Amino acid sequence: MELTILGCYSATPRVNTNPTAQVLTIKNHLFLIDCGEGTQVQLRRYKVKFSRIKHVFISHLHGDHYFGLIGLISTFMLLGREAELHIYGPKGIKEIILLQLKLGKAWFNYPIIFHELESKESQLIFEDEKVEVHTVPLKHRVYTNGFVFKEKLGDRKLNISEVVNAKIGVSYYQKLKQGFDVENEEGLMISNKKVTFNPESPKSYAFCSDTAYYPECIPNIENVTALYHEATFLNEHEKMCKPTRHSTAQQAALIAKEANVGQLILGHYSTRYANLSKFKEEASAIFENVELAEDGKVFKI
Amino acid sequence: MELTILGCYSATPRVNTNPTAQVLTIKNHLFLIDCGEGTQVQLRRYKVKFSRIKHVFISHLHGDHYFGLIGLISTFMLLGREAELHIYGPKGIKEIILLQLKLGKAWFNYPIIFHELESKESQLIFEDEKVEVHTVPLKHRVYTNGFVFKEKLGDRKLNISEVVNAKIGVSYYQKLKQGFDVENEEGLMISNKKVTFNPESPKSYAFCSDTAYYPECIPNIENVTALYHEATFLNEHEKMCKPTRHSTAQQAALIAKEANVGQLILGHYSTRYANLSKFKEEASAIFENVELAEDGKVFKI
Repeated sequence: MELTILGCYSATPRVNTNPTAQVLTIKNHLFLIDCGEGTQVQLRRYKVKFSRIKHVFISHLHGDHYFGLIGLISTFMLLGREAELHIYGPKGIKEIILLQLKLGKAWFNYPIIFHELESKESQLIFEDEKVEVHTVPLKHRVYTNGFVFKEKLGDRKLNISEVVNAKIGVSYYQKLKQGFDVENEEGLMISNKKVTFNPESPKSYAFCSDTAYYPECIPNIENVTALYHEATFLNEHEKMCKPTRHSTAQQAALIAKEANVGQLILGHYSTRYANLSKFKEEASAIFENVELAEDGKVFKI
Repeated sequence: MELTILGCYSATPRVNTNPTAQVLTIKNHLFLIDCGEGTQVQLRRYKVKFSRIKHVFISHLHGDHYFGLIGLISTFMLLGREAELHIYGPKGIKEIILLQLKLGKAWFNYPIIFHELESKESQLIFEDEKVEVHTVPLKHRVYTNGFVFKEKLGDRKLNISEVVNAKIGVSYYQKLKQGFDVENEEGLMISNKKVTFNPESPKSYAFCSDTAYYPECIPNIENVTALYHEATFLNEHEKMCKPTRHSTAQQAALIAKEANVGQLILGHYSTRYANLSKFKEEASAIFENVELAEDGKVFKI
């Protein structure tokens, strides 16, 4: 799993900083998470093969998280896209996009499928053989969801030399991968555990932006391999968190610790801070494994 | 009068090229003309004092001409703007902007005044003591206007030494500036022309993008000091003009010649061309004074 940060600053795009957008590569999917203004340029800048994006997840309808979506959709049209595009986001997003396409008399060379969200409970919103995605309801000034992306437990791996030693026919390999005990060529039952390895443990990634400090989200993100949590403010501006419904770096670290995540990635910094090192410093006092998102940075998860 | 090109390419924003947006400085106004995605970043990049923009003119509702507007409006809110913002653009633009502000639960710290356009005739849409702005109906796939910005004829200038020689009292200076003959301190009538200079001849700028070749626009842009006319294609792709309703560089030059303009500025280049010099070459065969727009370029008009 690989996470490319396209933008990780709050509020307004500037010459050298971009609003929220990231691409998660997971089991052959390219998922786009949020899409602030300029995201399509960031996708080009970091050479993401963005025609492969088939699913876009929008956390909430503040501009720094979605104003780039209509431009990306239009560019897909100009580029002759034919593949479906699925958009997951708060109720209202469909009206915004379709109104602009209608007034621009846009043609539709590919289907856009909207999955509008309005539940306050966590929901399974995407699932295939290898991946599932759930919403993580958050607490912000407008209806907001984070998302948790989970690999499913894969097949068991064959221990080929043991499989051969045990004289198991090829036609049974699939059953072995699925965890069954099987009969060998001599009619003996072979215990699965003797001839297979455990599958890789599935990885998971949670995206939580934007939100006030909200421990109620912990059950939905517990034990994830990596958590991106917004950290708009440093401690010195903690009093700004309440009216704006944002978090400090320390509050993000408290969530990471309580949720027992593997790694915490901070982002959504207020543009008032010229130097980000204090974000890491303040969070590290509470939770050890902290990384700072930066535009263009790639995290292996 | 000064024109700053923020973006002059068609279709999709890329790492080093931007969709249409320009700032016209005219008689102490900063007028923003079109506002493609990323315009607010371009305004910052070229250090335009963009809080001074009070009037935005949108030609048509294709994304490369207005997708940056909602972001700019939002940034004005975040920056605590209080001054009115006037938006002139096709019917529908108000619905697009207000829907997004409503769904984002935006607060309004400044008034936005929409002037929605739907006439197919040229209209006077802005006027003050020194400037007037008219629409220039164009021919494109959706309802589109260009705009012509005209300085008004200013006051006559006093020839101070002659005014003193002629013994004209200070209380008559304003009348002189307005062109009247006046009585001097000895009761003699003094001819205005003897003691004043002609005012500077008023300048004018016309913006025509996007449009097919459309000579019907000529009466509305005749004799302007400078004309920006779209030139999406070179001659080799002239056949693309009809379905897309765009122009070639030569067609732009034909319009410039027939309209007897002072200078032609080309822009709105298709992103298929790596080298722009042929645009100038092809247009110059028909009209002599041709300049190429480039992102960041400033034209003194």
